Amino acid sequence: MKKHNFSAGPCILPQEVMMKASEAVLDFNGSGLSLIEISHRSKDFVAVMENARSLALDHLGLKGKGYQALFLHGGASMQFLMVAYNLLEKKAGYLNTGTWSNNAIKEAKLFGDVVEVASSKDKGYNYIPKDFSVPNDLDYLHITSNNTIYGTQMKSFPKGNVPLICDMSSDIFSRQLDFSQFDLIYAGAQKNMGPAGTTLVVVKEDILGKVTRKIPSILNYQLQIEKESMFNTPAVFPIYVSMLTLEWLQNIGGIPAIEKINNKKAQLLYSEIDLNPMFKGYAKKEDRSIMNATFNLTENKLKEEFEGMCKEGGINGLNGHRSVGGYRASMYNALSLESVGVLVDIMSELERKG
Amino acid sequence: MKKHNFSAGPCILPQEVMMKASEAVLDFNGSGLSLIEISHRSKDFVAVMENARSLALDHLGLKGKGYQALFLHGGASMQFLMVAYNLLEKKAGYLNTGTWSNNAIKEAKLFGDVVEVASSKDKGYNYIPKDFSVPNDLDYLHITSNNTIYGTQMKSFPKGNVPLICDMSSDIFSRQLDFSQFDLIYAGAQKNMGPAGTTLVVVKEDILGKVTRKIPSILNYQLQIEKESMFNTPAVFPIYVSMLTLEWLQNIGGIPAIEKINNKKAQLLYSEIDLNPMFKGYAKKEDRSIMNATFNLTENKLKEEFEGMCKEGGINGLNGHRSVGGYRASMYNALSLESVGVLVDIMSELERKG
Repeated sequence: MKKHNFSAGPCILPQEVMMKASEAVLDFNGSGLSLIEISHRSKDFVAVMENARSLALDHLGLKGKGYQALFLHGGASMQFLMVAYNLLEKKAGYLNTGTWSNNAIKEAKLFGDVVEVASSKDKGYNYIPKDFSVPNDLDYLHITSNNTIYGTQMKSFPKGNVPLICDMSSDIFSRQLDFSQFDLIYAGAQKNMGPAGTTLVVVKEDILGKVTRKIPSILNYQLQIEKESMFNTPAVFPIYVSMLTLEWLQNIGGIPAIEKINNKKAQLLYSEIDLNPMFKGYAKKEDRSIMNATFNLTENKLKEEFEGMCKEGGINGLNGHRSVGGYRASMYNALSLESVGVLVDIMSELERKG
Repeated sequence: MKKHNFSAGPCILPQEVMMKASEAVLDFNGSGLSLIEISHRSKDFVAVMENARSLALDHLGLKGKGYQALFLHGGASMQFLMVAYNLLEKKAGYLNTGTWSNNAIKEAKLFGDVVEVASSKDKGYNYIPKDFSVPNDLDYLHITSNNTIYGTQMKSFPKGNVPLICDMSSDIFSRQLDFSQFDLIYAGAQKNMGPAGTTLVVVKEDILGKVTRKIPSILNYQLQIEKESMFNTPAVFPIYVSMLTLEWLQNIGGIPAIEKINNKKAQLLYSEIDLNPMFKGYAKKEDRSIMNATFNLTENKLKEEFEGMCKEGGINGLNGHRSVGGYRASMYNALSLESVGVLVDIMSELERKG
């Protein structure tokens, strides 16, 4: 039976990417060797790393604008730490839009003062705070563009006179933005880019080198840039699969093309949530995420029936995060409109039955 | 043509592991989903993580002895930092046996005083220092059990009254040792365990929690233990392949069985190096590594011919590290005796021709 994978991350990747990745584990580029047994300093893998870094900047429209792309170890959680280690001298501002923002704040506090410029904690993070000012004396302002757990997404971004740092783990490469408004973007691979095990960091070089503390080598962005993202052995397989996914995105028309499909998927599902009395959405409408739709049953007694129907229909990964419950349909780039259609049909059927 | 992969790392893995890994990228456990698109919190992946951690302790004979096994992000280079962050309060001792020891020392100096208890720098790191004492006032003593670049390996280990920390990246699971003499062992996966992108840490819990500094979450061993090696999304694919390799090792008879094969391979190659006048070994005989044999041609004019013969014979990855030149034959667990035989035959043929 065909599975429809709505997992929040790690998540669905394009089928052709899976097939190429599987093949490369057996024989990479017809070399007679597996991708995972060759030296990361071999010509063939250096080409993979260069291509992945180049494609990332291309997609974001940041080539020739003073940015560098790095594929680093450790996930976004490592970036919570690295951002502060490299950039926080005295005081940083954080916009608190949920669990991941809070985790980033926690690590930053080890390195300096942290100001919460605004928070949506008062309403269970079901909206994005908008009316706040950005103090001029911050080393940087940190935001989370998309909040997977609550299904909220920033539609516009704060203007200020300080560097803007964005955790874009769950919506990078999904929509057109002026990415040059950010000074540093980071994203764990395991949503729109690849398998778990590597993290993309896109950083404007001129914001670096300004803190006085000594930075451990592997955590130092400047050293990572100098070493062309190969300070130590990189995560070969996750980076190769990320490269394949970025190539796939390029071949289907890049961010402009995928954005149209993503909007269609979200529209289809949110329409159903709003029209079907069996369901209610969690996030405030104007802040709804195109990537993660969060919703609940209006009557809990239908839980077993709904979940049984989902299972029968091949729906995977629809459970909400354990901290908020309910359901979460993650509709990342590789999820097809057809899969959303299958889910919506099940939701409609539940209404007819009810 | 069959390739004989002598790469220093990432390196050869068992063929059956490659095949299972390739299959799992298409369909994991018959689930209809790829290994790399499922949640790391799914029952199936949690079982992988538990199995990998358990197998690691089993192989080392450390189960029930107060140790925990973790699969962390970042490579051994991240451990250079984490060891010091978690354990260095005032002063640590390091045995300097080459490049990797030096890199570890560099990071430790950011956190406290470092004493080099001994060094083999005087002779280009071609031997292991033996006569040195271990001061009693160290927070720990750090050693590197095998030095890939120089082809040296520790055959016995210092006794002392301080915790013993071992970078075992390039010879873990290759030979029988009393592993309980170490308080913390770490090893990047990409030699005897799996693909690049995860690092095994085996730590005795009672050495933790003694430094006064605050440790960032992702770098904190105690927190990683508490979260069962899932503080954040782990490197799913590299950990799965590591588990497969540890299962493969178990099926062929564990460390005792592989040690016999490794000794045979090393004996075959070192005999040739010693008997063949066209070659000379780099490392001091008594300190020679069973994993990495380093050697040079006695006459440089044969370089082109020897390398051509190697290429023709399907030999891959024989170049020495750029810092020492010459040749390096890495004979990790998955390399067959047959492959070493092919190399030795080429070396003999060169002698006959010469």
